[in-house]
Amino acid sequence: MPPTNPARRNALTDTAIKLLAVSGVHGLTHRAVEKEADLPPGTASNYFRSREALLVAAAERIAELHHADTDRATEHPATLVDLLTESLLTAATTLRNRYLAIFELQLEAVRRPLLASALAGLQDMSVRITAGHHDKLGLAIPREKIPALIALYGGALFTLVTAPPGSVSRDVVQSMVQVIVYGALPATDTPGSTRLE
Amino acid sequence: MPPTNPARRNALTDTAIKLLAVSGVHGLTHRAVEKEADLPPGTASNYFRSREALLVAAAERIAELHHADTDRATEHPATLVDLLTESLLTAATTLRNRYLAIFELQLEAVRRPLLASALAGLQDMSVRITAGHHDKLGLAIPREKIPALIALYGGALFTLVTAPPGSVSRDVVQSMVQVIVYGALPATDTPGSTRLE
Repeated sequence: MPPTNPARRNALTDTAIKLLAVSGVHGLTHRAVEKEADLPPGTASNYFRSREALLVAAAERIAELHHADTDRATEHPATLVDLLTESLLTAATTLRNRYLAIFELQLEAVRRPLLASALAGLQDMSVRITAGHHDKLGLAIPREKIPALIALYGGALFTLVTAPPGSVSRDVVQSMVQVIVYGALPATDTPGSTRLE
Repeated sequence: MPPTNPARRNALTDTAIKLLAVSGVHGLTHRAVEKEADLPPGTASNYFRSREALLVAAAERIAELHHADTDRATEHPATLVDLLTESLLTAATTLRNRYLAIFELQLEAVRRPLLASALAGLQDMSVRITAGHHDKLGLAIPREKIPALIALYGGALFTLVTAPPGSVSRDVVQSMVQVIVYGALPATDTPGSTRLE
């Protein structure tokens, strides 16, 4: 019978995420996870049969944590610029390890079709969840712009988490978010000349 | 005396770039470069004293090749949307290995201060070169938006080169570029309702 302790499973995947960020994808092995989580040898392979299963589980856990955060963030009304600025700023600073880990996985997926297909599934889910948030917030972003918006959000986040940590300020993040949001809005919804200030 | 054959040096760095893309940063060693380039042991360390020097040389070579391409692209007048669409599409398809390699280096730089500082220098150079191109083309993008534009271009490229290769089409790329360019333009320069079509 496969082990089914969800808290233990999350402890293992959270440790995997930390290892990905700190040591790179090459540093993530079953044994490294067990050592770092102070668990006996064999624990990780009880939960994840292969290294690829461990990589996929880490990606799924990151997506789960990310969506829990964005769900929470959309509970209170705010402008999309404020929401995305706050989200990117937190992701690139407090939660930097989590997003460094997903980018390690995204690059590794170029060489691992199984991981690539798991990430593509998470990406589809992300488009659906984002569309739901846009509906809830009553945003004016045309539906067909959402994939480009997500791609640019993810890309901006890559640039930010790989930038020297001290260089990421609210101003820098907001400047990128304004470009994305104003560029995605229908022309009539763009703010006026205040955009130039 | 250090070896100074520029063609040999470029052959070594071009091989390093290929290895970064195909095997990941962990697959790039002096010996792997020599094997792949069919050169005798010791050749690579004659040119690059340390592994970090090899990583920095690969990054510098990618920047050199990238700027040579963008210089060439700006010789003929074109809209910024067309220029960036063409540039991103080529980067994500024909030149995919080159840009996978720079992103491997960008993630590795999180753990290597010397590489990080080399990349920061290349980034500053990129801002200056881009500003020069904008002047040459007479673009309406405000100067202070250029760092955000470059950050978004780089981020978009990361998303594209790590996407499943078959999924990158001109339409997908153009849709991202339009968001970036229209979002960076002063409000009065944005196209009208055609943006919604």
